[in-house]
Amino acid sequence: MINAETIWTLLTAVRERQPLVHNITNFVVMNTTANALLALGASPAMIHSSDEVEDFVAISQALVVNIGTLYSEQIAACKLAALRARASGVPWILDPVGAGATPYRQTAASALARLGPSVIRGNGSEILTLAQQAQTGKGRGVDSLQGSETALDAAQQLAQDSGAVVAVTGAVDYITDGARVLEVHNGHPLMTRVTGLGCSATAVIGAFLAIAPEAFAATVAGLAVLGVAGEIAAGQARGPGSLQIALLDALYGITHDVLAQRLKLAIR
Amino acid sequence: MINAETIWTLLTAVRERQPLVHNITNFVVMNTTANALLALGASPAMIHSSDEVEDFVAISQALVVNIGTLYSEQIAACKLAALRARASGVPWILDPVGAGATPYRQTAASALARLGPSVIRGNGSEILTLAQQAQTGKGRGVDSLQGSETALDAAQQLAQDSGAVVAVTGAVDYITDGARVLEVHNGHPLMTRVTGLGCSATAVIGAFLAIAPEAFAATVAGLAVLGVAGEIAAGQARGPGSLQIALLDALYGITHDVLAQRLKLAIR
Amino acid sequence: MINAETIWTLLTAVRERQPLVHNITNFVVMNTTANALLALGASPAMIHSSDEVEDFVAISQALVVNIGTLYSEQIAACKLAALRARASGVPWILDPVGAGATPYRQTAASALARLGPSVIRGNGSEILTLAQQAQTGKGRGVDSLQGSETALDAAQQLAQDSGAVVAVTGAVDYITDGARVLEVHNGHPLMTRVTGLGCSATAVIGAFLAIAPEAFAATVAGLAVLGVAGEIAAGQARGPGSLQIALLDALYGITHDVLAQRLKLAIR
Repeated sequence: MINAETIWTLLTAVRERQPLVHNITNFVVMNTTANALLALGASPAMIHSSDEVEDFVAISQALVVNIGTLYSEQIAACKLAALRARASGVPWILDPVGAGATPYRQTAASALARLGPSVIRGNGSEILTLAQQAQTGKGRGVDSLQGSETALDAAQQLAQDSGAVVAVTGAVDYITDGARVLEVHNGHPLMTRVTGLGCSATAVIGAFLAIAPEAFAATVAGLAVLGVAGEIAAGQARGPGSLQIALLDALYGITHDVLAQRLKLAIR
Repeated sequence: MINAETIWTLLTAVRERQPLVHNITNFVVMNTTANALLALGASPAMIHSSDEVEDFVAISQALVVNIGTLYSEQIAACKLAALRARASGVPWILDPVGAGATPYRQTAASALARLGPSVIRGNGSEILTLAQQAQTGKGRGVDSLQGSETALDAAQQLAQDSGAVVAVTGAVDYITDGARVLEVHNGHPLMTRVTGLGCSATAVIGAFLAIAPEAFAATVAGLAVLGVAGEIAAGQARGPGSLQIALLDALYGITHDVLAQRLKLAIR
Repeated sequence: MINAETIWTLLTAVRERQPLVHNITNFVVMNTTANALLALGASPAMIHSSDEVEDFVAISQALVVNIGTLYSEQIAACKLAALRARASGVPWILDPVGAGATPYRQTAASALARLGPSVIRGNGSEILTLAQQAQTGKGRGVDSLQGSETALDAAQQLAQDSGAVVAVTGAVDYITDGARVLEVHNGHPLMTRVTGLGCSATAVIGAFLAIAPEAFAATVAGLAVLGVAGEIAAGQARGPGSLQIALLDALYGITHDVLAQRLKLAIR
């Protein structure tokens, strides 16, 4: 059973081992997610050239692939890194940003989802898009979330089809491996007015993947810790600017007792 | 007549409709401007590959084109997006960053200015450069602002030549459609010590363009709201670091009364 | 002799002359280092296309080259800019980020180090890698710092081989021109939990290079001012998020008296 003690043990492991987390991520959030990983206790590196991603992922403890500001060279780099990660036993997580927004993005997200990620994290629309594509071999853009029930069914199906743990994040975060479903009820609505906190969630899960024995627990831990930090930050913030700063401070300072008091997990 | 009530109505519309604003912008300010748009109430997307900008702009309510960290693929993407925006009736704004600094930048800025932007926003040097090029077909770098009178004349001429609303920003912001000239006297000198606030002004105008019936009013509203938020932030800040954060909080929290009290518009 | 008065004189010169500092830097820290330069009083520009770096560096007072998120076009741009900088008498500084992490990065860092930088600033591992390559013509990755004594010897050797002032930064910063060695004992451990403060150090040295008569003094001044600002910020911060913001405020507000009280230089 995953509870506050499990998560605290994993967080302590991240802080002690400072795992090297290789990120191929978008230009909007590179700084934000590097800082989130450093605040958490991990050691981030942002390396995206096809000329070196294979070498670098092989010396890393986890890989984060995020397609936010996609371009053709980056798709190649993501694929090379994912393949080498898999070959080297390095766990990796896919963030299919905007998967349904354009055909280009849909194709890229779908191709990456087939390369064996340990975890896929997206919002409802993104997971719905990927799940449809995994079923039909082609897909259509999904502009908006049609309710979290729908996305949850899609997440379970995608988990079964892909073999990955799938997380659908939103007001409630759902984590599933196709059989189990766990809900994280932490977080705060103001977090949606800061760019890249979904991407930060993905990166933080990546840090937990680097040290956790199991992808499901790593995903729950990542979303729980970020959600709790977001709640603490929202309690101190005057708006989205100060929230972003307070969130980094909270990630850095989060204690066992605060985590235990605030954690809201539910088995579905 | 544009006054605090007009601007408040437009700001309320942005917050309620959360327009999707497509940004092709520079790497320095991607995070900053995404956060400014989110704090304002809009929904930003940073999408810059030639493989998808045409698809994406067609589902957006406005397009922001900023040439800050220019490179050849990006020029192509900007042109494709601008052409599709125009064909789809999506308003777009051009930020010709550093237009006069190098021949490369001058050529790109000038070519984009001829693709029918609804608004062009720049500092004095940038607008002087573009105005000269629109007149002569070629141009020379303009290293420094030769006084706002000169830039204002150039702005009016550029507005007439290009058909765009032109904004010259600085200690005083001037907005002109070639006939009317309106001045915004809001803002604070400390804002010049934070990178990308000019780019944020452009992005914020983009959000207003998405919902306003008229480009002139949208431009005034964007500069006024950013200037008022900057004043509030400067009153709370201890330096440029805290100003940047307080500005996002202020954009998020700005109320009718604060806007009405602080707004300083003048008809020239 | 370099002391607080020397450094204050140089800082005052940066603030008064606002030198134009051309940066070809990585995507993670573009915003951070632009803001650090603005807070210090310099005028940063982030220009990285091969199509314009030569034109732009020729009108700049200093060049900063940082290979953080390297890709092939950027290597070309860095080389072109460095060559033109040298031809135009514009001083430049190299930040060989992750020099030993991959063969690709090692080759690029080593090639740039041979193009006549005025200063090279890196952590222990990076300087050890470059020093070995300068000696043997080829090199091996250096994953971790083997102690600052070792890195210091390597720094002196690299300074002699390259003709550059070499700075090894860490808990103590060492600056050497191959003969002299000076130590800066300012800074704070929390600075290591914020991304890009090493890159900010490089950029700040770049601003001092633009106005200082001598690269050695510029390097000491840059590291001292950033270290003192970091200490002030750490005294106000609740974690790495607020440290980053307070650091910009401190860079902007640093006074003669605070600098004189906090400065900790030692001749080795």
